Amino acid sequence: MTQRAYNFSAGPAVLPEPVLAEVQRDLMALPSDKASILEISHRGKTFKEIIAAAEANLRKLLQIPDSYAVLFLQGGSRLQFSMVPMNLLDEGHPSADYVLTGSWSKNSLKEGQKLGDMRIIWDGGDDNYTRLPADAELQVDPRAAYLHYCCNETIHGVQFRSEPASGDVPLVCDASSDFLYKPIPIERYGIVYACAQKNSGPAGVTIVVIRKDLLERSRDNLPSYLNYKVQAEAGSLMNTAPTFAIYVVRMVTDWLLNEIGGLEKMYAQNQKKAKMLYDVLDASDGFYAGHAQPECRSVMNVVFRLPSDELTKKFVAEAAEHDLTNLGGHRSVGGVRASIYNAMPVAGVETLRDFMIRFRDANAK
Amino acid sequence: MTQRAYNFSAGPAVLPEPVLAEVQRDLMALPSDKASILEISHRGKTFKEIIAAAEANLRKLLQIPDSYAVLFLQGGSRLQFSMVPMNLLDEGHPSADYVLTGSWSKNSLKEGQKLGDMRIIWDGGDDNYTRLPADAELQVDPRAAYLHYCCNETIHGVQFRSEPASGDVPLVCDASSDFLYKPIPIERYGIVYACAQKNSGPAGVTIVVIRKDLLERSRDNLPSYLNYKVQAEAGSLMNTAPTFAIYVVRMVTDWLLNEIGGLEKMYAQNQKKAKMLYDVLDASDGFYAGHAQPECRSVMNVVFRLPSDELTKKFVAEAAEHDLTNLGGHRSVGGVRASIYNAMPVAGVETLRDFMIRFRDANAK
Repeated sequence: MTQRAYNFSAGPAVLPEPVLAEVQRDLMALPSDKASILEISHRGKTFKEIIAAAEANLRKLLQIPDSYAVLFLQGGSRLQFSMVPMNLLDEGHPSADYVLTGSWSKNSLKEGQKLGDMRIIWDGGDDNYTRLPADAELQVDPRAAYLHYCCNETIHGVQFRSEPASGDVPLVCDASSDFLYKPIPIERYGIVYACAQKNSGPAGVTIVVIRKDLLERSRDNLPSYLNYKVQAEAGSLMNTAPTFAIYVVRMVTDWLLNEIGGLEKMYAQNQKKAKMLYDVLDASDGFYAGHAQPECRSVMNVVFRLPSDELTKKFVAEAAEHDLTNLGGHRSVGGVRASIYNAMPVAGVETLRDFMIRFRDANAK
Repeated sequence: MTQRAYNFSAGPAVLPEPVLAEVQRDLMALPSDKASILEISHRGKTFKEIIAAAEANLRKLLQIPDSYAVLFLQGGSRLQFSMVPMNLLDEGHPSADYVLTGSWSKNSLKEGQKLGDMRIIWDGGDDNYTRLPADAELQVDPRAAYLHYCCNETIHGVQFRSEPASGDVPLVCDASSDFLYKPIPIERYGIVYACAQKNSGPAGVTIVVIRKDLLERSRDNLPSYLNYKVQAEAGSLMNTAPTFAIYVVRMVTDWLLNEIGGLEKMYAQNQKKAKMLYDVLDASDGFYAGHAQPECRSVMNVVFRLPSDELTKKFVAEAAEHDLTNLGGHRSVGGVRASIYNAMPVAGVETLRDFMIRFRDANAK
């Protein structure tokens, strides 16, 4: 067996071992095609079944109705930051509202501002992005093209517990880092998008779930690749899709359905994993200081500081010696970040928890 | 050993077997990281070495000087059809010239026309895209933002032998289906772009080689992902790159350098392979009728017809029984298409040649 560490990378991130094993097994040749998944046409029978199965799995996991399209695109969330306003702004809706809860929502705003007159309706910057808005704090412009928010801020480790109220304004969500971590009421959303490499697959594909009536806003003169309507009508196969990445998404969603047993069960496991680590923080007398306020803590990205930069470095280095890898926080906030996505085994989190307790015992004054 | 067919798919297409074997070997975990290539950060040491090696290999193979940037982007050539005019058109250059030699150059024109006033300076449509222009037929507007052409039309099987003359106008080339098949005089080009899945890797990454002075045309208010200058300054790592696809490109370029011995040797092998098949066409008394005029025949995509649709179907089906797969022509031109990219072994082409001779003997009247 190949030696594998517990990898707490924020993304690209850990994938389920059974998925990797299946990718490896068939890498030289899919028996159906006597060719590798890397070598077969996106228009052939085998790949068409793969992309259909990936979509069907997503529809089943998230209970996505027919009134929504599911797209598999390239360019990451970064390109969605631009595609959303490119497609949704129009003469009747020249502006959109943004909620700023951390680095990623700020980045989405920056791209949006190149394309329209965006309104910031809430900004957690004064609190260093440690908290989230209550619905009462959000005054959405009823004429806004959409309300954009990021449900889980990977860098700051804050996560919405439920959807912000947007009235009749389409809610657009960057769910890149917690997509599929629990069931969501999909009918509350106009668009949910997520790059795959954090919680649903490898880098190279971005999943977009879009309410079909919104497709009518896409202007014909948009570049075809960037036009949601064109992509939806072509079933994401207007041009060559990122076939391998979609193949892995199909397997990850198979794993969620068949090995985990669906998103309710995944959510219970995710809550259990997060609680293990936050309990250590809370019992550490401030040795491990969480970044987010307790009611906004992310179940996916546990972000905390140690008493000094020196101890932080020591923590990350010693953890790596114990095969607990990639625990350094993002350069913009420092400290430690343990990303514990769906595919991080409970045993990995237990091992980290035990290490954290030992490390504090050895290093707290 | 896993059974593999000779796969003549036009793309995604055959990859070198040693590359697939290496991908398979390390799929569960790269020894350096104790994690899969699918799970490691694009900002970590290992991936940074991979993307640097992929770029260095390309620079070595094509002798790309420092005055050119090498980018690894997503969205396929289709997105390049739009990114080229988005970045290169400006107030001083509001229009560009296009040479139409088949389906792909027509598609690039269509996307270009959404963004600027494009001029068609040559169109092979009257000859059903069986021939290519001589330099004397091309009257390039000296004020054009660029001259766009497609050096190898995958569907029609026509391929330029050398670069069209564009004077001081930057030459932009869609090289998706023959990139790396032979050495090219890179200094003749303003931009060469190629999706990887035909001749240089798997689907999901597009390589763009761009002369650095052209980066100055990119306006600041372009969406960041679509801005060549931003992408060049970030070394293609503004956001999460398609890490796995770039990893495979690194291996394919390693293979070209170390196993093949460079592009001169690759070209000699490619010419030998193509000649084997065209010789069968030429000796078939019209049983196999090539689409392209002989002087424009593609070394990558051998496109021909049989005397009837019935015989075409029979040919494709019988070939598949002999593990010669994906020989059906594109729906727009019909017939047979044998795509014999770099990674198609000489033995595969020999097997196809022998089958073609036997099939003709058995079926010609």
